[in-house]
Formats: sequence, structure tokens, C-alpha cells
Amino acid sequence: MASGLTKEKIHDLKWAAEARDADKVRALSADLHPEDLAEVVEALQDLEDASFLLSLLPEETFAETLTFLDDTQRDKLLNQLSNREIAEKVLENLASDDATDIIQDLPAERQREILQEIDDTAHAGDIAELLEYDEKTAGAIMAKELVKVPLTASLIQCVREIRRQAEDTDDIYAVYVVDQNDVLKGILPLKKLLLAPTNARLEDIIERDVISVQASESKEKAAELMKKYDLVVLPVVDSMGKLLGRITIDDVVDVIKEEAEKDYALASGLSENVSSADNLAVVARARLPWLLIGLLGGILGSRIIGQYEEQLQIHPEMAFFIPLIAAMGGNAGVQSSAIMVQGLANQTAFHYSLLRRLLREFLTALLTGAVCATALLSYGLIFTDNFSLAITVGVALLTVIIIASVMGTLIPLMLYRFKIDPALATGPFITTSNDILGLFVYFSVGRLMYGTF
Amino acid sequence: MASGLTKEKIHDLKWAAEARDADKVRALSADLHPEDLAEVVEALQDLEDASFLLSLLPEETFAETLTFLDDTQRDKLLNQLSNREIAEKVLENLASDDATDIIQDLPAERQREILQEIDDTAHAGDIAELLEYDEKTAGAIMAKELVKVPLTASLIQCVREIRRQAEDTDDIYAVYVVDQNDVLKGILPLKKLLLAPTNARLEDIIERDVISVQASESKEKAAELMKKYDLVVLPVVDSMGKLLGRITIDDVVDVIKEEAEKDYALASGLSENVSSADNLAVVARARLPWLLIGLLGGILGSRIIGQYEEQLQIHPEMAFFIPLIAAMGGNAGVQSSAIMVQGLANQTAFHYSLLRRLLREFLTALLTGAVCATALLSYGLIFTDNFSLAITVGVALLTVIIIASVMGTLIPLMLYRFKIDPALATGPFITTSNDILGLFVYFSVGRLMYGTF
Repeated sequence: MASGLTKEKIHDLKWAAEARDADKVRALSADLHPEDLAEVVEALQDLEDASFLLSLLPEETFAETLTFLDDTQRDKLLNQLSNREIAEKVLENLASDDATDIIQDLPAERQREILQEIDDTAHAGDIAELLEYDEKTAGAIMAKELVKVPLTASLIQCVREIRRQAEDTDDIYAVYVVDQNDVLKGILPLKKLLLAPTNARLEDIIERDVISVQASESKEKAAELMKKYDLVVLPVVDSMGKLLGRITIDDVVDVIKEEAEKDYALASGLSENVSSADNLAVVARARLPWLLIGLLGGILGSRIIGQYEEQLQIHPEMAFFIPLIAAMGGNAGVQSSAIMVQGLANQTAFHYSLLRRLLREFLTALLTGAVCATALLSYGLIFTDNFSLAITVGVALLTVIIIASVMGTLIPLMLYRFKIDPALATGPFITTSNDILGLFVYFSVGRLMYGTF
Repeated sequence: MASGLTKEKIHDLKWAAEARDADKVRALSADLHPEDLAEVVEALQDLEDASFLLSLLPEETFAETLTFLDDTQRDKLLNQLSNREIAEKVLENLASDDATDIIQDLPAERQREILQEIDDTAHAGDIAELLEYDEKTAGAIMAKELVKVPLTASLIQCVREIRRQAEDTDDIYAVYVVDQNDVLKGILPLKKLLLAPTNARLEDIIERDVISVQASESKEKAAELMKKYDLVVLPVVDSMGKLLGRITIDDVVDVIKEEAEKDYALASGLSENVSSADNLAVVARARLPWLLIGLLGGILGSRIIGQYEEQLQIHPEMAFFIPLIAAMGGNAGVQSSAIMVQGLANQTAFHYSLLRRLLREFLTALLTGAVCATALLSYGLIFTDNFSLAITVGVALLTVIIIASVMGTLIPLMLYRFKIDPALATGPFITTSNDILGLFVYFSVGRLMYGTF
């Protein structure tokens, strides 16, 4: 049972690479999966050490390890290789989709030079084709390698075709059946091929109800289809139904992960999905936009409070609860938005009409708001002797929670209607507007209360 | 090419079900995937309508459609069926893992009664076994159906075993090879079986380096392994290496999605992953804990400001910028935490030493903080004539951003050390503590500045 990588093994292998101990590196790396090797390579601070380790790997393992490295480090390592080396040692050992990923970020001219060095021109052509797809599309994550047979083929021919492709393609789950124009007509799962009598006709045993995606559709659409229908592999076609390639579930797992990370980044106020390993300027650039929006919101807030300067001078104790009101409005709003954003993502948001959804939101807010306001009021009445202040803060809190919750429900819906990512609404955007709203409500209620009591 | 479900088709089918038009329901539902049918059923408000539609489906489609429904609706529909119906129409038509999911939430006694109604006692035994696993474990998401042969089997026997299992198991990707104690010894991918000469010996062609997971490990561990090594199916073993079942990628896609949604929910201040379709009390319960923490933070904040009441009475204009300082500290802190949380999730956080990470965070905060403080200072100097206030707010802002960023980096790390989900740190928890911190810094800087200028 392969137990994978232990901390000690990473340490030993790192040490052996740093000590330039070729025999030890070879011995320690022999039974490691490329993904594990990539982890070791990423742990090596020095580029020379990483190159040394990689140079000792068998060619195919070397190529696969590169596919698991993070982009920055991989590009640095590629810069140390000649075009010929990249073509022969890396691209020729990889499937078309992985090969495309590897040279994706290189300048177009270098891409062309590298592809010219590939001996297998069909493989080079596949990579060149894949490089043309917009990286947001299903086409960009597909692989060209697949087993394809005409509708007229015999089962023996299917097995022969699998044998021909077997070396290039690790994971064959099905044979694709096409007509004379390469239009996808059906699929034959390997299990069915294995169990069918040898003289069965392809026409009689293929599954014709094939779910496919068009190359120009978004990769999220492909991910959604595979997730929805529990597919392991999804054929990609053009607008005429012609079979172009296939997407495997491992690529889609990455898409799902990326999507989730993007939502999380947006909710946390990062405009790009940055990693702690990125350089400082990139991280700062991702953080600044939302900080500046927050700043603008804060300045607007200061002007609103400024309007109530007189009131504050008479009742300076009102200032005490400014952060509480602002923060609670922000919290309640983000909660409502997050529920809405997830509801939009998995379509449950559409089970109710808009009116009913708002009513539900209003009632939840009333419930949670009442609990919070009561708690706050009790605190105010017990620990302070300022009755007006306690009432003011309590009423303002309830009002702010209700308004923020309803806004938090409406804003993601509006963004969704205008085809903007609703996850934006869970970021500092909504916190900031709720801060301002909260202050306004607080001082309005204050004016009313102090006037009344 | 199956294009799936159109809005019109949902509408027509809904209408036909509501009108009790059996022929139309049958005609419209004939070529729909169970997942699509589940979508239609979820769109039906009335339980009777849903039951009517489901009763017209072929038995197998009916069972599979149930697996795609959300838990609440499914449990309601199950309550309308007798134990015998659940056993015969549902469980007998499903693989062991899906069957287990269906009755998971029923009372133990009803589970037992239902299982006793299943004619296939082996199947009932499998479900009973799976029900025993803690729902957090890999065992809970595995299926018992798999193709297993002894090491001594011939290839013909393998094909025969696949044929025997073929009816129960939709997705067969490989044959598992075990010794006389059922200990997993290797796997034989279908592709290899198809291509090997019929007289080949199993021992010579199986892959022995099998990645597996123990049933008692977490389901996240299983998901991680499959994601890491790009696996479509993962064998599950006990502590002795005995083969117990297998996990397929579609189950793991759900685990990955759940995990991402949990992080997102935490970051948005929801203590449970609630959906907009859940009932009000559940939603309110998920929201209240964080709101109450926010409330507590706000009260603490009010006490801190209270300490500076005198200062506020002399300089009431200081109150104007309270929300700005609080909000910016919160924003910067959450950003740092989010980067750290993602770094911890994908291990990139460990590429640098703690000291270097803090230094990087400090420098990023200095950079972004300086930009924000300069912007604010310029605003203050241009639009107000209060030099002291402008300087105070600018200096406080820079200080708060730096402290909040460093704290935002340290807190997730601390949580991680203590084996608490670091994603907690991106929720209202950190916003609240940064609010308080920010106020403290603001008024301290204010006292210093107004004393100096």
C-alpha cells in the first residue's frame, strides 16, 4: 500500500539534493509519485537544487512532476531548459492538455519554437490547437487524446484502436463512436466492450444519449455538467457536434476548487486569488482595491457623523456604540448575502418567489435582531444608567439588522441579474455600505429618541 | 446529444404533474436524467404533486431520482412510503452507498425494519455495515460493490466476475486483486485487462503500487488523496489492509464542494452551512452565534471608547473616524487571514519560515497601509482644516493596518497548531477583535498627537 510522503522523506530528499548526492536522490525518489516529488521540489528554496533533483528523474517522471509544480517555480525551471529539451523531455512525455498547460504562459514566439522541436507533428498540432482556446472555455481544459471509432467498426477494431492509443492515454474509460463527419454518435463504455459478444454490432450496444459540452462554452459549464451527472469524462464537441476532445474529472476538480477559492477570496476582500507565496506587489495589488473602497466608505461615514456633530456634543456617549452598530449591520448583511450567493450557485434560491424570499429574510432578521437587541438593551439597563441611550442603541440595532439583511438578500440578486458575480456582495462592498447605512439609522433613531424621552 | 433540461420543459412537466396528466408526465419525463427529474420535483411546491410525478417513473429511475433530492424533501416523500416500498422500490435499485444515504437520517428502528424487507440479504448486510460508519469517515462514503478476484484467478475469471457484478455496478474501472485473507494486493485497470493476452498471469500484469485509504480516516483525507493523485476510484481498506469497499470520484466531488461551502460559510459568519431553503429557525440558529460575538465585541468597544470620553468631549470630531478605523482594521485582518487560510489548505504556507512570513506580511501591510494613510491624509488636509485630526487618523490607520495584518496572519496559524479549523479566523471573530484593537490604537494615537501638536 503506497502510504505516500512522510515528513522525514521530504527532509532526507531535500538534504540529499542540497548535498548533490545523486545516488541518494535516485534511491529516495524511486518510488515517489510525481505529485509528491513536486512537493519536495517546491520545498527547495534554491533553484539549482531543484534542477539537480529534477535532472535525476526518469524522463517521464520529470515531465509529470513539472505539471504538479506551481506556475512561478515551473516557469523559472523552464527558463533553464532549451527549446529542444522542453519539446523532447517534457512535452513529448505528456498528454496534450498537460503539455499545453506547461507552455501556456510562455511568449507566443517561444511556444512556436518549442512546438517546432517536437518530432511527433500530430502531437505538436494538438498542442497548437489547444493553445488557441480562451483559458476560460471548456476547450482550454480538454485533451485531444481519445479512442475514436467509426459507427461501422467491429468490436475487434475497437480493441485494436484502444491498443494503438493505449501508450498515449493513461485513462481510457470509453470508446467514442462517430459518423463519417466525425460527429459524435454515441459512446461505448469499456465495461460494455468487455462483456459484449465479439460479433455484436456497435450500433446495437452503444449508448446514444451522450452528454457533451461545446468547446466554446465556459469551463465552469463543463464542471457543472460533470458534477451534475456524475461523469468521469465528458466529450467536447464543436457547434456541429463534431468530436474535438474530452475533459476528465481531475481537470474539473481543479475548476471546482478554483471557483470555490475565487468566491472565498472575494468574500475576504481580495480582488485576485493570491497565494502567500506570490510576490509582495501582487499581494498588495490584490488587497488595495477593497481597502480603498473601505476607505472611501469610512470617509463617507465620517461625513455622516459630522452632520450630527451637535447631537454628539450634547450626547458624547452616543459615540460609544458607533462601532457596534456599524459592525452588526455589516455582519448581518454578509450573512444574508452568503446564504443568497450559495442559493444562487446551487439554484435553491429559485424555489421561492422574490416576495416570499424577502419575507423569509425579514422574519429571520426580525428574530435574530430581536434577540440581539434584547441582549443589548438588558446590558444597557443593567450596567449603565442611561435609559435613552439603551433604548436608542437597541432600536437602532434591530432596525439596522433588518435593513442590512434585506439589502444583503437583494444585492446578490441584482448582481446576478446583471450577470456580475454575486459573490462580490459578500466582500467589503456590502460591509462598507452597511456601515454607512447603520450610522445613518443610528443617529436618526437617536434624534428621535432623545427628542421623545 | 442530450442537451439536458430546458426551462420550458421544467414548466411543462410541473404543469402536467399539477394537472395529474399521467400520459403527459410519462412522455415528458421519458428521456430525462434522474438529476433533471429531481430538479423538477424540487420545483413542485406540493408534496402530492411530487409523489404523483415520482409514482409514474420506472422503478430504477424513481430510486435514482430520490438520491438527487435535497434531504428535507426526500424525507417527506419517504414518509409517504411503506417500509416494504422503500426496500423494494428504492434500496434494491441502488448501490449500497446511495441506499445508505437514503435511509441515513431515519430512526434506527425504522432502518432495521426496512432492511429486513430487502430480499437480497447480502445487499441488506452491506447497507447495515455502511450505516455503522461515522459520517465524517471515508467508510461512510464508500460503496461495497466492486469486482474482486483472488491473485490466482485467470483473466477469463476476471471477465466472468465483472459480468456477475455488472448489473449491480454501473461504473467499473478496475478489478481488485486480493490474497486469501482479502488483503488488497493490486489492481487491474479495465484497459489492461482488455489488452492483455488471454493467457497472461494476473501476478505479472497487475499494478501493485495501489493508493488506498483506511475506512476510519476522514472523508476529507480520501478526497485529498483522490485530488492529489488524480484518481477516479479509491479502494478502502481496514487496518490490516483488507479490502472493504471503494470510493468513486463523484462522492468526493461532493466532499470537496461541502468543504469549500463550509469555509465560505465560516468566512461569512454562519456557524452551519445553511441554505436559503432551510426553515427560519435553522437559519436563525446558524446566524445568531456570530451576531452575539459581534455584539459582545461591540460592547467591549463601547467600553474602550467610554474610557476616552473626556478626550471625545474636547475633540468630538474624533468620533467621525471611529467607523473608518474599525472597518479598515477588520478588512486588512480578514485579507491576511484569508491568504493564510488558503496557504494552509494547499500547504504553500510552509514554503517560508514563520519569521519570513511575518516579515512579508509586515511589508505588504506597510505598503498598502502607506497608500491608504496617504490618501486619507490628503483628504484630511484638503477638505478639512484640522491638521491634528488628519495626522492622528492617518497614523492610526497605518498602525491599525499593520497590526491587523500581522494578527490576521498569526491567528489562523495558531488555530491550525491547535487543530482548530483556521477558516474560523476569517469570520466575524477577527473582524470583531480588530475593531476593538483599532479603537484602542486610534485613541492612544489621538492622545499622543493632540498632546504633541
